[in-house]
Order: sequence, then structure tokens, then C-alpha cells
Amino acid sequence: MNKITILIYCKDRANIIASVTNFIAKKGGNIVYIDQHVDREQDIFFMRLESEFNDKDFCTDNFKTIFKEGLADKFEMKWRVYSSEKKPKMALFISKYDHCLYDLLGRYNSGELNLEIPFIISNHLDLKTIADNFKIPFYHIPVTKSTKQDAEAQQLALLKANKIDFIVLARYMQIISKTLINEYPNKIINIHHSFLPAFVGAKPYHSAYKRGVKIIGATSHYVTEELDAGPIIEQDVTRVTHTHAISDLITKGRDLEKIVLANAVKLHSERKVLVFNNKTVVFS
Amino acid sequence: MNKITILIYCKDRANIIASVTNFIAKKGGNIVYIDQHVDREQDIFFMRLESEFNDKDFCTDNFKTIFKEGLADKFEMKWRVYSSEKKPKMALFISKYDHCLYDLLGRYNSGELNLEIPFIISNHLDLKTIADNFKIPFYHIPVTKSTKQDAEAQQLALLKANKIDFIVLARYMQIISKTLINEYPNKIINIHHSFLPAFVGAKPYHSAYKRGVKIIGATSHYVTEELDAGPIIEQDVTRVTHTHAISDLITKGRDLEKIVLANAVKLHSERKVLVFNNKTVVFS
Amino acid sequence: MNKITILIYCKDRANIIASVTNFIAKKGGNIVYIDQHVDREQDIFFMRLESEFNDKDFCTDNFKTIFKEGLADKFEMKWRVYSSEKKPKMALFISKYDHCLYDLLGRYNSGELNLEIPFIISNHLDLKTIADNFKIPFYHIPVTKSTKQDAEAQQLALLKANKIDFIVLARYMQIISKTLINEYPNKIINIHHSFLPAFVGAKPYHSAYKRGVKIIGATSHYVTEELDAGPIIEQDVTRVTHTHAISDLITKGRDLEKIVLANAVKLHSERKVLVFNNKTVVFS
Amino acid sequence: MNKITILIYCKDRANIIASVTNFIAKKGGNIVYIDQHVDREQDIFFMRLESEFNDKDFCTDNFKTIFKEGLADKFEMKWRVYSSEKKPKMALFISKYDHCLYDLLGRYNSGELNLEIPFIISNHLDLKTIADNFKIPFYHIPVTKSTKQDAEAQQLALLKANKIDFIVLARYMQIISKTLINEYPNKIINIHHSFLPAFVGAKPYHSAYKRGVKIIGATSHYVTEELDAGPIIEQDVTRVTHTHAISDLITKGRDLEKIVLANAVKLHSERKVLVFNNKTVVFS
Repeated sequence: MNKITILIYCKDRANIIASVTNFIAKKGGNIVYIDQHVDREQDIFFMRLESEFNDKDFCTDNFKTIFKEGLADKFEMKWRVYSSEKKPKMALFISKYDHCLYDLLGRYNSGELNLEIPFIISNHLDLKTIADNFKIPFYHIPVTKSTKQDAEAQQLALLKANKIDFIVLARYMQIISKTLINEYPNKIINIHHSFLPAFVGAKPYHSAYKRGVKIIGATSHYVTEELDAGPIIEQDVTRVTHTHAISDLITKGRDLEKIVLANAVKLHSERKVLVFNNKTVVFS
Repeated sequence: MNKITILIYCKDRANIIASVTNFIAKKGGNIVYIDQHVDREQDIFFMRLESEFNDKDFCTDNFKTIFKEGLADKFEMKWRVYSSEKKPKMALFISKYDHCLYDLLGRYNSGELNLEIPFIISNHLDLKTIADNFKIPFYHIPVTKSTKQDAEAQQLALLKANKIDFIVLARYMQIISKTLINEYPNKIINIHHSFLPAFVGAKPYHSAYKRGVKIIGATSHYVTEELDAGPIIEQDVTRVTHTHAISDLITKGRDLEKIVLANAVKLHSERKVLVFNNKTVVFS
Repeated sequence: MNKITILIYCKDRANIIASVTNFIAKKGGNIVYIDQHVDREQDIFFMRLESEFNDKDFCTDNFKTIFKEGLADKFEMKWRVYSSEKKPKMALFISKYDHCLYDLLGRYNSGELNLEIPFIISNHLDLKTIADNFKIPFYHIPVTKSTKQDAEAQQLALLKANKIDFIVLARYMQIISKTLINEYPNKIINIHHSFLPAFVGAKPYHSAYKRGVKIIGATSHYVTEELDAGPIIEQDVTRVTHTHAISDLITKGRDLEKIVLANAVKLHSERKVLVFNNKTVVFS
Repeated sequence: MNKITILIYCKDRANIIASVTNFIAKKGGNIVYIDQHVDREQDIFFMRLESEFNDKDFCTDNFKTIFKEGLADKFEMKWRVYSSEKKPKMALFISKYDHCLYDLLGRYNSGELNLEIPFIISNHLDLKTIADNFKIPFYHIPVTKSTKQDAEAQQLALLKANKIDFIVLARYMQIISKTLINEYPNKIINIHHSFLPAFVGAKPYHSAYKRGVKIIGATSHYVTEELDAGPIIEQDVTRVTHTHAISDLITKGRDLEKIVLANAVKLHSERKVLVFNNKTVVFS
């Protein structure tokens, strides 16, 4: 049994759903999941579809060719086809905070995440023991103003050598350069410790405290060149009161950050996210 | 332009999605929405689909016939087809509490609810003024042990005469008899003031207080013969603390009841709910 | 039985709590509630206290005098003393949206709000019927650029004549002038339809849609001269997805606005809110 | 500087607050925190108070004596006095599930929990590596029907030898016997994977799935002889839909269990919980 996931978007027009489902059926596929959305403002059609093929000789690469020629080109679709057999490879970038790291590795260990983590990169050595405990290769690549370019070249080499599909910044605390962003467009996931677009930039818990908000949040988004302005994948919030000092906001926020980032990682690795016009479509 | 909504469930098997979409396309329909779900425990396929037909001569009743003969019978589907032109007719049953009534009528007035309310029935006169203010016919049908059967006969006559599609018990506080339930199976919506299945029956806020829960809830469900045990449509909760007396739980609970009931009414009237095996599938 | 509520803030120093409680006890009061907070950043002490006096001759005005002279001056306190017998008087300012109006009047009618509403002011006639139904005097004071000053003079005259304690802007949609703000400092409650400080100003649902947030919110705050930047009293949020159009955000947001505004009104009218440094302390 | 925390409850009567604060002031203490609650149904007064003493010779044990003789006996108070210098000692009981263990140890490591964990007990060896990684002594005490009494004797010996203050069952999966409960009354914290009182007992996620609830929860409570019926410390919930299989509920529930248990542990270890009549008062 071969199972593939297809993600599509294109200009909306009549009969797309029937055309796609008909095409799959004719190629011998059984559709087991379909979800679609039409953005009426932009007039764009989005779809996610899972299909099973019993044919022993089924080949995902062949399917891509006939899908492109027989259907996608006709509708001028942007599309991606994934085989469920190939787990996505995720690189973890960390720094000194351990809460998101523990959380992701705990989930990884328990089988909750359907992905591979070939390695962890950090600009500090503080969390090496954790990587060791979980038996994941750890690369220490310090970053200073003068070494930033070199550091990034090392990172990029590691990413390429390991055929990394996407990067997760688990409180990495460094600005990602244009070069890396362009190599991994909508494939670098960040966790920002505020309810975006409120409190962009550094020290959002301090700003939240100063403004006296009654709810704090965390936001996971794809990294784009503009700081904290990329497409939002997932957000969550929790209540606070005047009794919470900044340190309390930080502690409470950690629980949000962990869960929001883990959810974003799951959605991305299960190929449930499409990006259009700096916004996400997150399929069910 | 004619727009229809199709709800289907049947034993799961290969090619249902492609067969349905293909059938619609061949009849000239453009599918504008599709959502589906497979219950892997029960092996049941569920689908909701919206389709537009430009054909001037399109007739929903004709479509039902060809849909049944050309497709539904073959897959042994349970199915329903609705024309978007026909707004569902909802009867409101109330008693002495006004919060759900004000809430629903406020939404009705503002155009938020896509339905008609031909009349309101109450076993008391307390809320007649509200019905009058909103200019909705109000029938006072008192219910006592001895008159219960008569009262129900009157209710049924009104429901039939007005071609009512579904009934909403907006804190009606009376047990609905088997007769009425059988006339409107999965078409009588109740709001229960607890987080079911906790605190079934009378005085749930008192029970919640006694148990010392830290969260209270409200549940909207279809009425079945077993008390508070019907398929759950919608639930919501709110935090409480030891400082809340029973009267505070009641006040806080009212806000939950209003919103949960309104959401259930919207979901039902937009034909987004399917019931199978005493559980609901609530489409997006 | 006389019951008073005391609100205090002052520079933090040793023995404030014991001094206050001792003072009350010596004057024959039984303290039935006490809540306090110290802002360690600003080094400010805040307290709310309820006390019962059985003395037949108890007089709140006398108590104020001895409280000031015997205690408050010594600690250089800012303080307020309220008799529980005097319900606060609230003026409602509305425009064309009815959801917050219905919600507040429904709660008022059911006895949920411990306050009086002497009148409603609107710059439009659209909602007069609702005021009439609830039998609350309705003043139509149109506001245009040229008549703004006159309109405000009329408003102020009504507020003064009715001894209004605080004003609630239930989606009033007009900028309040400096004059009125200075007459009612931290006594004008607004509801803003976003999760402040995100989306300040006009059309926040449109901005939220454009940014692609996954959660929307509402914020109730005291009006200050800077737009949407006053002390936050209460906030709440709800989840949204890519499937929600702007109109859906508006509909979902209405439910938030109602509840957030109602909670803020309750907190203020129960004298549970203190403002310091553009932030609120909200007592339990 | 000595800081103590006092927890009190007694029959409600006039002047308790003033008497306690006055007593503390006379003994040279500065009250830095006070929170109180009156249960009007039971007519019981509850209080939590923190006080600082600058006296070099201050002795907590002495204070307890004079507090008892000078105040507590007079009001027939149940009371406890804690020195902030003495961190409570917590024993962790685990079995095969690692998510709560990772979560608690991660927080412990980061300094978020103000307590000591002298050891971990498990009836299985599966999670020994995690204890080793965090460098916490691990005792493997298998439990079978025939060895249950012996196992418990071993547990009790360890608890006594280490002067354990309270026990946390981090998904321990074994029924705790009456003997242990009586040794640690309201000092054994359990996490139950449902929104109690719904779904008491084994396999609550299966029951939740079967009932078709739209929200699942987790509950942390003190262990009493009646299964899952002890005083509730903390609860939280999350939304689910018809698309979630039982395995999804289990995965989503793990996140709830972790956070609810961690919050309960924090509240207990910070001496913020009082139990009366099988309910908790949770101070701010």
C-alpha cells in the first residue's frame, strides 16, 4: 500500500475538486481524506488530499510527472506531492533555554512526532548534555558578529549534508540571515514569546508586563526577512493578573511556548500547512 | 444559481469521494465545499458537500431522485439534500429563564441566524413581553402532570401546522415525551447547564459546587429518551474558584449556556451536524 | 448593618495591613473581606477591604473623616470609601450596534448588575426601540464635526444632572474629548474589538484577518487621551482559522465584546478596580 | 530576615482578621501578604498570611508555641506555620509513562519548583534512565498482588527515612492503600486523565471517545480512599472533535496532564492549598 499526500493551490475556478478526485480515481487511487478551502478575498483555491494506491509498481516520482502533465499544468496549480513513507528531516537550532528542547525531544522519544532529527545545532554548549542523553548529534557553532557568516556557512553545510527538510528554532535567540531564509522558504519555524502582532522583537514579557495585559501568548510562525512578521502557524494564550511579576510571565509563558511550538512542528511535519500571501492555511 | 447541501453517511469503501464528486460534476454542479470523515472504529464514511448549479431548470426534488437512483442506493447511503433557499424553521420552547431567549432573539434580529422562528411556546407567561417586543407569536401552553398529554398534543399541532424543522429548548425545564422525540429525532436541541457527562439531571451547579470543581461547563445536545444522554453538539467551559458561591456559578454559567446553545443552533441550522451511534460529526 | 468598601494605595512600608485592620477593629468594624497586592517594581501597596459596622449611628461620611485623619494621612494614602447602600450610576453611550446593549440590559434586568442606569445616550436613533422596551430614558444627541462641542456640552449636562458615577461606551464609535475624560478619569469604560495592544484603532477585525492571526480578542479599558492605550480592565480571546472570513471574525468577536464589557462593568461597579501608572489592579 | 507562612481555618466569627494581623504586628512581624475566604454555606473562615520578622533571634518553633497559646486556641483554629527556609520534600511515584516525569524534572532542573526531590519510586524499571540522567536516586519496588503489602512497607520506610512531606503520583497507575493515605492525608497528589467527576476510574479517554464529548480534561486531586473522589486542586481542558481517535485524545491529554499536575505541585509546595470538607481553598 502506497499513501501520498497532495497539497495544491491555484486560482479558483469551476470543477477543480471533481477534476482532481476524478484524476486520482482514474490512476487507481482511493481518496481517504480531502479538505479544501477557498479564499474569497483573493479568489484562491487550496486543497489537501490523501490517497492510497494498491498498485505494487506505484512510484511517487512517476505520479508526480503524470500529475503535473495531466492535471496541475492545466489548472496552473502550485502543488507538492509527498510519500507517507518518507519522514521529514528536522534540524533543531537551540541556544541556552531548555524547555522547548526537553519538550520536543520528549515527544520525539515517545513516538508522538512523525519525523527524524538528524542533529541539533547550538551557539552555546549549555544544553549539550540533554542532546547527549537523548543520543542526538550536537554541533556547537558559536556565533559572534565577526563569525556570523562563517557560522552560517557551517550550518548550511550540515543542513545540506543531512538533507534537512525544515528547521525549528527552539528559542535560538539569533536573527536568521536572508541566505538561510531563501534556502528554506516557509521551512524555518520560530517560536515567539508573545501573542503576535503584539510585542514584536526583544523582551515581549517585559512589554506585556508594562502594558498591563490580562492575557499573554505565544506564536509559532515561519521566519521571513521582516522580524516576527512571517506567516502564523499556531498561537495560544493564558490568563495573567496584576499579581504576576515579569518572572511569573516568563514561567507561565514557557508552558505556552512548548505547546505552541510542538503543535506547529506537528502540523508542518504532517504536511498540513500551506502558505499564501504571508498567511497560512492549516488543514484539519 | 441554485446551491444545495448534501449530507451522507454509509459503510466506508473505496472510491466514494471520487464517485460522489464525479456524479455531481456530470450533473453540471460545481462543488464549492467538501468535508469528509471516516470513523475507523465503526468503519463509517461521512461527508458534507455544497454544490452550485447554474442550470435555470434545476430542481432540488428532481436532483434528489437522480441522486438516490444514480448514486445513493448503490453505496447504500443514508443521505439528505437541502436547498440553500429554504431556511429551516425553528420552534423555541421556553419557560421562565430569559438569558438564552434574549441571546437567540438578539442574534436572530441582527441576521446572524439563517433560519425562521415562526413561534415561541412557553409553559409560563413570564417572558411573553420579550416575545412581543421581538414581534414573534407566543403560545402559552401550561403543563401540569394531569394536562401534560393535552399540552403535548397542542404543541404537536402547532409544530405540524407551521412545518417546523427543529425545536430548541432554551431552558424549557420540562421532560420531553417519547412521542415528541420520535416525531423529531435528532431535531430537538437542549442546553444542559453542566459539562456532560458530569452532573446529569437537576441542579448541576449545586452538584458542581459540592464537588469543588475548578471548571464548570454547559452542553448542547440532541434530546433522546435517556435524560441528558443524547448526542453532544457543542460544549464550553469556564474557570471557577473556591470564592464562587452557587449563585456565582449560576451567573457565570448563564454566559456559557447562551453561547453554547447559540453555536449548536447555528451548526444545526447550517446543516453541519450528522448523528451516528449517539455521537455527532460536526463538519467545518 | 452598614457595609463599606475601602480602596487604598500608597508607598509600600511596614505594618500597613496591621494598621488598617487594627484601625477598623477599633472603630467597631468587622472585616469580612481583605485583598492586597504589592507592586515590587514600583514599591506600591494596594488594598481592598470590606467591613461591616453594626452601630446604628454609623455614618459613612463621618467614617471618611476619621479614616483620613486617623490613618490615611499618616501613610499618605490615596483612598476611596464606598457605602454598599449606594448603587453606582452608569450612563450608557451607544451608536448603531446592538449586541453589547442587549447584553448589558439583559443582565441589568435579571438583577446581575448591582448598579443603576439613569439613561442612554446615542448619536443615532437606530436603537431607541430597545431602550424603550427596557423602559430606560433615551437621549438622541447627534454628533457631527461642527456640532461635536455642543453635543458634548449636552452630554455633560445630562451626566451632571443625573449624578452619573461612570460611563460605558457600548460600541459608541466616537472619540471622547479631553474635557469629558478629565471629568471622568478612569471612569469611562470602552470596549475595543481586538486583543490590545494588537490592532489599535479602526477596523481591527480587518487587520486581524490580514495578519492571519489564529486567535482574536476583545479588550475593555478605561479611556485615556491616547487612543486605545488606557488601563486594561479585562480581555478575552477566541480561536479562529483560515476558514473564517472577516464577517465571521466580526460575528465571533461580538460574543467576546459582550462578555468582556459586561465583566469590566461588573468589576468597576463592584469597586474592584484600582488604577496606577496606566495599569489596573483587579481585586478578587 | 525570617519569613513564615501561616494557614488557618476555623468557625467564622467577628474580628478574626484584625486579631490575627494585630497579633503578628505585636510580635514584630510585618505582614507582606494576606488572603482570606469565608465559606458562607459552612460558615468557615480560611486565611493564608505571609509575614517577615527582622528579629535575629526569631525562631519558628517558638512562634508556633506563642501563636497557639496566644491566638489559635482562643479561636479554635486549625493552623499550620511554615518557615520559608525549609523547602518541602516531595517523593515521586512513577510507572511506565514518562511525560509527567520529564515535565516535572525539567521544571525542577530549571529552578521553577521550590522543593526537593530526594528520590523516585517506580514499580517498573522502564524510566530508570531518566532518573539517572537527572541524577535523582531511583528505587525499583515492584508491586504484585502478593507483594503489595511488602512493597508498601518498603515505600513507607523510604518516605520516613527521607522525611518526605508529600507524594506525587505522576501516572503511577496503582491504587494507594489506606495505610499510606492515612500517613499522608491530603498530601498525596494524583493526576487523573479526565475532567472529574466525569469518567472516574480506568480508561477515561476511551469513555470520553465513546460518549462523544467535545472537550477533554485532566484533574489533579488529593488521594482519598474513594477512587478519584478526593479534593480537586486543579483542572484544565482542551477541545476535541469527531476527527480525534482515542490515540489522539491520549496524545492531547498528555499535555493537559503535565500542566495540571505541575500546577498542583506548585500550589501545594507553596502552601497555597487548604482542604475542608473534601474541597480545596486555593489561595492566590
